[in-house]
Amino acid sequence: MTINSLQAMFDGEQLLADLEVLAQIGVDETTGGMVRLAYGAADRAGRAWVRGEMEKLGLAVTEDAAGNTIALYPGTEPDLPPIALASHTDTVPHGGKYDGALGVLAALAAVRTLHAAGVRLRHPVAIINFAAEEATMAGGTMGSRLMAGNYDVGLLQRLGWNGRSLADILREAGLDPNRITEAARPVGSLAAYVELHVEQGGLLAETKTAVGVVSGIVGIRRYQVVFLGYANHAGTTPMASRRDALWLAAPYVLQVRDVAVAHGIVGTVGEVTVSPGVANVIPGRVELSVEIRGLETAVLDAAETELRLAAEAVGAEFDFVEDKEPVLADPRIMEAIAASCRALGLLHRVMPSGAGHDGMNIVQLCPIGMIFVPSEGGISHSPDEYTVPEDNVNGGRVLLETLLRLDGVV
Amino acid sequence: MTINSLQAMFDGEQLLADLEVLAQIGVDETTGGMVRLAYGAADRAGRAWVRGEMEKLGLAVTEDAAGNTIALYPGTEPDLPPIALASHTDTVPHGGKYDGALGVLAALAAVRTLHAAGVRLRHPVAIINFAAEEATMAGGTMGSRLMAGNYDVGLLQRLGWNGRSLADILREAGLDPNRITEAARPVGSLAAYVELHVEQGGLLAETKTAVGVVSGIVGIRRYQVVFLGYANHAGTTPMASRRDALWLAAPYVLQVRDVAVAHGIVGTVGEVTVSPGVANVIPGRVELSVEIRGLETAVLDAAETELRLAAEAVGAEFDFVEDKEPVLADPRIMEAIAASCRALGLLHRVMPSGAGHDGMNIVQLCPIGMIFVPSEGGISHSPDEYTVPEDNVNGGRVLLETLLRLDGVV
Repeated sequence: MTINSLQAMFDGEQLLADLEVLAQIGVDETTGGMVRLAYGAADRAGRAWVRGEMEKLGLAVTEDAAGNTIALYPGTEPDLPPIALASHTDTVPHGGKYDGALGVLAALAAVRTLHAAGVRLRHPVAIINFAAEEATMAGGTMGSRLMAGNYDVGLLQRLGWNGRSLADILREAGLDPNRITEAARPVGSLAAYVELHVEQGGLLAETKTAVGVVSGIVGIRRYQVVFLGYANHAGTTPMASRRDALWLAAPYVLQVRDVAVAHGIVGTVGEVTVSPGVANVIPGRVELSVEIRGLETAVLDAAETELRLAAEAVGAEFDFVEDKEPVLADPRIMEAIAASCRALGLLHRVMPSGAGHDGMNIVQLCPIGMIFVPSEGGISHSPDEYTVPEDNVNGGRVLLETLLRLDGVV
Repeated sequence: MTINSLQAMFDGEQLLADLEVLAQIGVDETTGGMVRLAYGAADRAGRAWVRGEMEKLGLAVTEDAAGNTIALYPGTEPDLPPIALASHTDTVPHGGKYDGALGVLAALAAVRTLHAAGVRLRHPVAIINFAAEEATMAGGTMGSRLMAGNYDVGLLQRLGWNGRSLADILREAGLDPNRITEAARPVGSLAAYVELHVEQGGLLAETKTAVGVVSGIVGIRRYQVVFLGYANHAGTTPMASRRDALWLAAPYVLQVRDVAVAHGIVGTVGEVTVSPGVANVIPGRVELSVEIRGLETAVLDAAETELRLAAEAVGAEFDFVEDKEPVLADPRIMEAIAASCRALGLLHRVMPSGAGHDGMNIVQLCPIGMIFVPSEGGISHSPDEYTVPEDNVNGGRVLLETLLRLDGVV
């Protein structure tokens, strides 16, 4: 078999049909959105259906202590660790059909192709359907975090999408909360990790580019910035005597934008809380959430410094809330993806992932890479999320092609 | 009796003692604030004590259908309508000792002086203790609104400070909700109206001015301004592709400030509502409350036009929420107050009232005027509200002096 003949056997129609079947599990008919919330009944039903499809190919399927589903397609060199093709089938409330689902079902389609052709690679291939990727519980990417061995004290007490603790939610899903650390795998237990995912931004669709070769997953830093003024009567306090906290916070919103643009990163003020928040009282306190995302730690450091100094210049408190460091894709995997696109005649571009993904954690175990396909209009986490059929199939083909190339590289 | 000998009989110590007695009724011991909420038990207790003090002077005291208390000190010319000295003894939750109380007790002190001296004026003198002046119910100044004959359909169904309807609250206070329109009085039934009140702003205290001669009560216009963007993922949406509603709303906050300053009025953005209001989602919609206050309708019109055009320039919706027109003080009353200050050797200045008062309504019945005394630090509607004893007594003396002068003028 040549690579070209394997591509000829890739069943794009089956991949699209699988996407439609999974989209019937946990669909909310009022919104048309997917509601497969981590570990819930619909999520479990979706996972069970995917597992059945894996087993139809004769794969050995296991569920680990965190609820991650792992299917193994054997290789010819039993001592090599598997190459993992992965994503997730849980969704946000009223999410779309493609986010996560595409990556899992395209991995299945790639292995189905090998299986149909009777081809084995040097490496085993692992299809991983991660548990709890969406931030409906404990900040998201929980299955991969546990697989990478990152267990936080207090994790089991954190509350999930139904207001109950993770421990309770795991128990209801038939998992033992006391054993979740057993999901941890050793460093080097995977040879490489590749995830196909929809972009969730509008860059590929706007530029009519078929594939994004992901250069890394941006780091995310979140801050709380508090501006203090003095609350007073909006009628009796002359303008010159006012200390209006909103007069300090409003220019800062624009500074966040300008600092982000100047550094080539993104910056967002998503929450504004004004106290007391009454039409006839001068704001005495304004709290902003500030978030910056970028791929380079040095750039994030520089932007953070500018934002801190700008806050301190007007007497605001600037507090750290969260820091997720950037994760870089492996250059060999990036090159394998780019070479696959060239071989398939697909226009591609290198780009960062602005959203978090399981690869952020799995990078602790092995080199990672990601393949993006276009999201029409950049719409994400919405029933209106859409990726055209051809783009989904292209993504699956690039995933297969990348797998074949990596088998000789890693 | 000469005016000077009447001033010599004015009992400032008694006025200060009365303020302290009333401040024991409805005090919350945890905050030290007054909680005499309109028509509630503590408010009724406060009013009953004031009524008792009125009756000690032999005044004929009545309560009208809206719960306003009116005490009459007879004049020598029975055909003349009374000159009203008025304010209120209800408070906001955890308000101060002086807001409202000072005006009622100073009116009592002025009449007590006449009574002690055995002096009658040409006009009868009415001391009015208005019901429900504070905006704890139906927007405030309800007693005077009903006295002026302004009854809105639906008023009885509006909810008060305890979440119950005005009708229920009136019933519990022993009033008949079906008869409140009987509180209306005919135009000309009062000769003049003078209210002594604490400033509630910091101008007099800052400038060490004993008395404010109120030129009018500002008009209040409130708008809701809605800025529309497009909510999207804060990680995956490039800065250049964003339509962030907060990028439009933030400069507008500063425009409200600048327009107000340019027109010599006050302007406030007190409420900000960002949707969806999540740290990792670009704001798709921002709603601001905008309020401007000023004494001249033409100036408010000009400022409103500028604010509307600025909103429309960025595609924002600019909607009217409320409009209270400015009310001007009568020049003869202003002159009587100023002349009284000169006679008493008190520094005074002409100034608008930025807050609403019962005179806004009573102006429909007769000419009005107001006397302000300093609020230390401009603090209002707070247990920390404070007016120094000398300023309270000065206010009472100016009120008496103004009454004597108006008796010959109106």
